Amino acid sequence: MGLINVENFAAGQWIAPGDNARRIQSAITGEDLALAGASLDAGAMIDYAVTKGGPGLRAMGFHDRAKMLKALALYLNERKQQLYDLSYQTGATLGDHGFDIDGGIGTLFVYASKGRREMPDSDIYVDGEPEMLGKTGAFGGVHVCTPLKGVAVHVNAFNFPVWGMLEKLAPTFLAGMPAIVKPATATCYVTELCVRMMLESGLLPEGALQLVTGDPGDLLDRLGSQDVLAFTGSAATANLLKSRENILRESVRFSAEQDSLNASILGPDVTPESPEFDIFVKEVTREMSVKAGQKCTAIRRIIAPEGLVEPVIEAVKARLAKLVIGDPRREDVRMGALVSASQKRDVEEKAALIAQEAELVTPEGLTIAGDEVQNGAFLAPKLFHCADPDGAEHVHATEAFGPVSTIMGYRDMSHAVALANRGHGSLVASVITHDGDVAREAVMEAGAWHGRIYINDRASAKEATGHGAPMPHFVHGGPGRAGGGEELGGVRGVMHYMQRTAVQGSPDMLQAVTGRYVPGATTKEAPAHPFTRRFGELEIGETLETAAREITPEDIAHFAEFTGDTFYAHTDEEAAAANPFFPGKVAHGYLLLSFAAGLFVQPDPGPVLANTGLDNLRFMKPVQAGDSIRVTLTVKRKTRRTDEYGEVRWHVRLTNQDGEVAAEYELMTMNAY
Amino acid sequence: MGLINVENFAAGQWIAPGDNARRIQSAITGEDLALAGASLDAGAMIDYAVTKGGPGLRAMGFHDRAKMLKALALYLNERKQQLYDLSYQTGATLGDHGFDIDGGIGTLFVYASKGRREMPDSDIYVDGEPEMLGKTGAFGGVHVCTPLKGVAVHVNAFNFPVWGMLEKLAPTFLAGMPAIVKPATATCYVTELCVRMMLESGLLPEGALQLVTGDPGDLLDRLGSQDVLAFTGSAATANLLKSRENILRESVRFSAEQDSLNASILGPDVTPESPEFDIFVKEVTREMSVKAGQKCTAIRRIIAPEGLVEPVIEAVKARLAKLVIGDPRREDVRMGALVSASQKRDVEEKAALIAQEAELVTPEGLTIAGDEVQNGAFLAPKLFHCADPDGAEHVHATEAFGPVSTIMGYRDMSHAVALANRGHGSLVASVITHDGDVAREAVMEAGAWHGRIYINDRASAKEATGHGAPMPHFVHGGPGRAGGGEELGGVRGVMHYMQRTAVQGSPDMLQAVTGRYVPGATTKEAPAHPFTRRFGELEIGETLETAAREITPEDIAHFAEFTGDTFYAHTDEEAAAANPFFPGKVAHGYLLLSFAAGLFVQPDPGPVLANTGLDNLRFMKPVQAGDSIRVTLTVKRKTRRTDEYGEVRWHVRLTNQDGEVAAEYELMTMNAY
Repeated sequence: MGLINVENFAAGQWIAPGDNARRIQSAITGEDLALAGASLDAGAMIDYAVTKGGPGLRAMGFHDRAKMLKALALYLNERKQQLYDLSYQTGATLGDHGFDIDGGIGTLFVYASKGRREMPDSDIYVDGEPEMLGKTGAFGGVHVCTPLKGVAVHVNAFNFPVWGMLEKLAPTFLAGMPAIVKPATATCYVTELCVRMMLESGLLPEGALQLVTGDPGDLLDRLGSQDVLAFTGSAATANLLKSRENILRESVRFSAEQDSLNASILGPDVTPESPEFDIFVKEVTREMSVKAGQKCTAIRRIIAPEGLVEPVIEAVKARLAKLVIGDPRREDVRMGALVSASQKRDVEEKAALIAQEAELVTPEGLTIAGDEVQNGAFLAPKLFHCADPDGAEHVHATEAFGPVSTIMGYRDMSHAVALANRGHGSLVASVITHDGDVAREAVMEAGAWHGRIYINDRASAKEATGHGAPMPHFVHGGPGRAGGGEELGGVRGVMHYMQRTAVQGSPDMLQAVTGRYVPGATTKEAPAHPFTRRFGELEIGETLETAAREITPEDIAHFAEFTGDTFYAHTDEEAAAANPFFPGKVAHGYLLLSFAAGLFVQPDPGPVLANTGLDNLRFMKPVQAGDSIRVTLTVKRKTRRTDEYGEVRWHVRLTNQDGEVAAEYELMTMNAY
Repeated sequence: MGLINVENFAAGQWIAPGDNARRIQSAITGEDLALAGASLDAGAMIDYAVTKGGPGLRAMGFHDRAKMLKALALYLNERKQQLYDLSYQTGATLGDHGFDIDGGIGTLFVYASKGRREMPDSDIYVDGEPEMLGKTGAFGGVHVCTPLKGVAVHVNAFNFPVWGMLEKLAPTFLAGMPAIVKPATATCYVTELCVRMMLESGLLPEGALQLVTGDPGDLLDRLGSQDVLAFTGSAATANLLKSRENILRESVRFSAEQDSLNASILGPDVTPESPEFDIFVKEVTREMSVKAGQKCTAIRRIIAPEGLVEPVIEAVKARLAKLVIGDPRREDVRMGALVSASQKRDVEEKAALIAQEAELVTPEGLTIAGDEVQNGAFLAPKLFHCADPDGAEHVHATEAFGPVSTIMGYRDMSHAVALANRGHGSLVASVITHDGDVAREAVMEAGAWHGRIYINDRASAKEATGHGAPMPHFVHGGPGRAGGGEELGGVRGVMHYMQRTAVQGSPDMLQAVTGRYVPGATTKEAPAHPFTRRFGELEIGETLETAAREITPEDIAHFAEFTGDTFYAHTDEEAAAANPFFPGKVAHGYLLLSFAAGLFVQPDPGPVLANTGLDNLRFMKPVQAGDSIRVTLTVKRKTRRTDEYGEVRWHVRLTNQDGEVAAEYELMTMNAY
């Protein structure tokens, strides 16, 4: 079989490896597998992204882009066997593909879903409610987010050639920004195949996605204030990137996820007999073996009560001894190879540093399963025991990016947390405990050092996603040594590719900008009862003013009797008057809501199909018998939901005969188009 | 009068200026006014902050710290005349004090209020709702924020010696972080007086606040991953700070607000006769004269329709001609001095660069009002006209930090926006327009370049806070040339001093960590009806399960008739069945809410005083006649509100006879302690 030519996709063209291309070896055979590298015109690439990809993506709204992500996910899902087949060459097992390939596609699905459910059916993201500053409400502001007008450059690590790309692309595309992906050379052939699939799908606007598999040339030097540079990899490389003159001068948005010295703490409440002991041993062993320990989130430091260090060592050793290591294409193999011979040398060098402070407790020898892969970059898992974790330095600072971890004992929980925090910032720390107080203490004392704290116990074990697995719903990143960056976290991750802007003005201006009703804005009378108007006919700000209804003493008494809500404030004049919130007997809040519906509802079948919910109800002024209420119903927001109907949010205001607001809320209905 | 000795407050000691102290001149007389500078032990200062100030602040919750901010604001407010009196020496007028001194105190008040209203009565901030990942809901996560464990170093600009400090301190203290303030030397004597007042108030925990008025020594080199460095000032200084080796290596949180080339656009809809013309002229003139134009948000570029350039120039010149410039202590003076003679030289040099591309249209001469201040750093306002804004460079890049601005014409709105964006990122752009479409276009096309977009017109003018005034409710900062930082914005600003951590675990663990009920967590039966239990007695997770109530056909018919809500889905079997959301005739949602209250209410006077509101109501499954509903009421959160009562949030779940959830919501009551 000949070498794979790993191409680039630049300014709309596929470009084959050039004269200076580098050879990439298979992780499992050690033989030459692929060629990558070409001279590219970085200026043309940026121009293509900014003049084609950006406008193409911005012409879509959040919901359209979310639908595009879903279609991409489905497209890749149908072709994932091809990705699996090629990915074995990186040393990854079928189980590892689950994290990389299925995990990446799953991230697209989650962002597709969150984009539809949690972002507006619009091209502007409104962050929070408007706040008015003046006494009459004539001036205020609201925060909005709009896509950055440049390009996002994603510099990814070798360990997750698919997930590493897709977890950055999903929020970038959802935001409305084009991307240039620069995968690490060692596994770029897998990324290239995935990019090729996405481009062939025809689902992306032209210019939205480009790929650099070799030298990026002066791409990074050309980045400016509307661009983003997002990096995953080592602390040393991150430092080189963020120190670049233009990155600093132009305040280019920079985000780094750095490999960190993640720790797992076995809670002080755990005994060798508790279920948590086994959970801990499984988590630790899994983090050493998945991806052969080549995960930025892997457990590098195992922190156990002093009295449990020996039992944990024995249990971990026993599990590791059963691990079949070798050809990842074999069904019985549970741990594959490191990505390359040079990576293996690097891990061994780092492990030697750790060995200065800790004792190796696992066997050195290794049997490699599979005749064809005896020259692959396989490494036996190395568990170290550090007897003096307080005096150690390398153990807390040197990361051997492979199946290497160090166990150390702690005296009490505050000692355990202090040891965990010695990593100077990590992506994730875990605590295996069945005691909520231990969990709370860990978060309060260690939270500031860790981007994620994973707690597992007997209650969650069967569904827990694992110490090492970042989920798209939750942030991935961490302070200090972990790079200070943040990715994912649902919609939070989209915001890294948008600019938040405080927009100030009159209610009418805020409404014009956000496309949703802002209290105080000029409203217009609905030309017909708004319940008779279809989704597409309703306009933001369109308003119905109902007739008034007087509340009688009999209404209140009857409502109490009928519903069973005989709370004294509605039934006993004297007791009600003694209550600091009421002037005397008052109408039930639910009576007001019910009568309000009676006032604004149009009874006949029409476009309004159902009242699906209600938000932000506040009772602001008590209503008593003799008062009369009327309702103002205003179209606030519209969101298409399915092919047949969309959600309408109505701003509802109940006022009394003096025009005072008795209650205010937001009502949701489903309306036919 | 002798020189003012500007002291430092370091590690609990006031330290007087030392041998190397620098002399500071009065802006208005040019004479020596103060001495500042001493050798400080930066290590001891950080240690004092981290070991005393941090723990002292963290021992308080958000509400306690919010109360502390309010008390500080009241304390300073009573003493503000002293601050005014001293501040005249910086060149500031009484009007300017309104922005600096009253504005700073006002920021404390706003954060005090937001801390109480928008943050929890707790020591942990919960960011969003929990999300469960597994099918049975046994595992999920939630984001929490905890205070960073280091120190915040605030490096402030000379122009706002009080506001500049307090706008950073308010969110820092509210987060629970101690601070070291380093004001610019030129006006540090005002900052010192304000710090002295705050320390003398006794309101702050020991170690919460320190002050460096001279050389900070190696303070910045000692910052690490739990510290924050927040800077306001020039782009050049920001670049020096963020390029420091340890700042990069340790991923120290860095935030910069840089002076930027802010623009104001006069909308294409405006004619010389419209009210917006006068509004524009007033905004522009005010931004040139307030603080003698020494504001990072001032309008440096005036962008007007080509046909209106001449009328705007004439109108601005006319207003400037009436401006009395001179001794800021005089009542008739509207514009004071620049902060120093050297600052004046700098502005003149920058103005000379602008003059290469633009013509000065205001007079050069200046009459200084006030005999005593003839040697002060006064400067006549300089309005330039740039005839070729597309070809110009300095006009868009060189900031003369004084009463200097350049007017330029535009052809159409997209040209206007392109010119505004040539600033490469700014703190604020304004658009004076009465046309919502113009406002929307400006935000969509320019939003990504600007941290704030200020829209003003006839409707908002009487309450608008001004182009140049950052409000604590809204973010202050901007991309690119503006530094890429973000401050203020209400609670958003507090988060810059906290670490966001994704906490994962079982519902019980998430509940233990957050201190609020998480659906799926183990509940416990209330020992008595929870409405009979006082605020202090109620426990998170305490639950009432009510009896069931069957819904009869008569109930539905009667509710329709009684309330007037005769929507067909409740009254017409056939029409209801044709509705895609309903199986046939269904009970009103409000009937369910009302009956639910009837089921869970305890009628007698007791600790529950009032139902104040309801959030996140979702109707999940229709209820028909013959179904029966029951209610599960669980204590979710508790928030002390006044000396007498607190708010209880209840999680309410309505289930039918098959245990299916018919509706879910969150109910708020006021409860006596």
